[in-house]
Amino acid sequence: VGTIQDIPALAKVARARHIPIHTDAVQAVGQIQVDIRKLGVDYLSLSAHKFGGPLGVGALICRIPNMLPPLIFGGGQEKTRRSGTENVPGIVGMAAALEERVERMEAETAHLTALRDRLIGGLTKIPGVCLTGDPEFRLPGLASFAVESVAHSTFIVNALNERNVCVSSGSACSASSKEASHVLEAMGYDERRARCALRFSLGPENTAEEVEQVLEIMPAVIEEQSRKGFEF
Amino acid sequence: VGTIQDIPALAKVARARHIPIHTDAVQAVGQIQVDIRKLGVDYLSLSAHKFGGPLGVGALICRIPNMLPPLIFGGGQEKTRRSGTENVPGIVGMAAALEERVERMEAETAHLTALRDRLIGGLTKIPGVCLTGDPEFRLPGLASFAVESVAHSTFIVNALNERNVCVSSGSACSASSKEASHVLEAMGYDERRARCALRFSLGPENTAEEVEQVLEIMPAVIEEQSRKGFEF
Repeated sequence: VGTIQDIPALAKVARARHIPIHTDAVQAVGQIQVDIRKLGVDYLSLSAHKFGGPLGVGALICRIPNMLPPLIFGGGQEKTRRSGTENVPGIVGMAAALEERVERMEAETAHLTALRDRLIGGLTKIPGVCLTGDPEFRLPGLASFAVESVAHSTFIVNALNERNVCVSSGSACSASSKEASHVLEAMGYDERRARCALRFSLGPENTAEEVEQVLEIMPAVIEEQSRKGFEF
Repeated sequence: VGTIQDIPALAKVARARHIPIHTDAVQAVGQIQVDIRKLGVDYLSLSAHKFGGPLGVGALICRIPNMLPPLIFGGGQEKTRRSGTENVPGIVGMAAALEERVERMEAETAHLTALRDRLIGGLTKIPGVCLTGDPEFRLPGLASFAVESVAHSTFIVNALNERNVCVSSGSACSASSKEASHVLEAMGYDERRARCALRFSLGPENTAEEVEQVLEIMPAVIEEQSRKGFEF
């Protein structure tokens, strides 16, 4: 949902009890400052395609090496953790993309934050649309919503897709799932709202005009999709 | 080692006993005709970078779906077998590369076989060098040898690398291993020979001139590397 959790506080609790702690920083890396030492976690994972790198490559950073069992067995590549011929162009591409993104991060943060805030301001004016996640501590490029009048995210995602606007229904990890968002349910949203979770991801290439276009079409899209699908 | 095993016969034995059978066709796909139905196996794996496709992508073909447990758990992508955002460019690139390779396969087989046979003929004339694997039923683009006078493959691999000739010490799966080749040991080679396994892979871009260059430098390389390294 884009909330920036207080990872250092969580890590402190875990470490005081000698519990290893991992943070999924896939959305954060390239958008905000991420320093594994300052976070205090033992493991941090990131994914190249979230910061302009190639698909199919990511990294797991370990503060303490050799603590985790191998994910894939075989020839012992990648310090025995993930055997198989290494995806060298992917790895090099990931590093290059991250360097570029980090260099431009400060300038891009301002741009993304402005777009995000305009999107949140505009969409939450539509009846039945609420922002999910923390309104203040959130990623610059991510705005997530629950739409209570629509039976399922898929309706909105498809309707927007036909208008060349690409959004997600919750996390990519469960893109093919038809269930209500377990994240929103865990956050206390009722099943009805948790069934229509929408995630808008903004990138450096997105423009203010594009955000205005989305704001213009969304009321009609929601109205249109509200009428159908409760038999879903 | 490049031997083309009689997979249909092996599959028949396994299937008669209701044992699922998998073949690692990574070296074969793109070099020879491969038809999972004719082979009679249940599973077949292939790797894109072996036929000119991108690194980091491969396929497991299953005749009977849903028999295998997931390799990576998560969002259920790739029919729940390998969760995670799909490497779409990799998958598309793999398919495109395979189509191209298969179209040219017949012409390339003639070219590769000629290069391979010249390489085998030339190298096996050097004292202490023997061909490993079947002399007749072998892949067009692969020639493998054991060099008994050299303490370890690494010496030859490095010496050839300095001369811009890239060869492998046994399988890529164990490229970082310092042990004797377990494949050659299983085939009955003594440890001494199994420690210096060399694999020459030929591709469509390789030329007859390159093979002649290798044949020209190899006697001196072997002689030079034989003198050292038995303390390895």
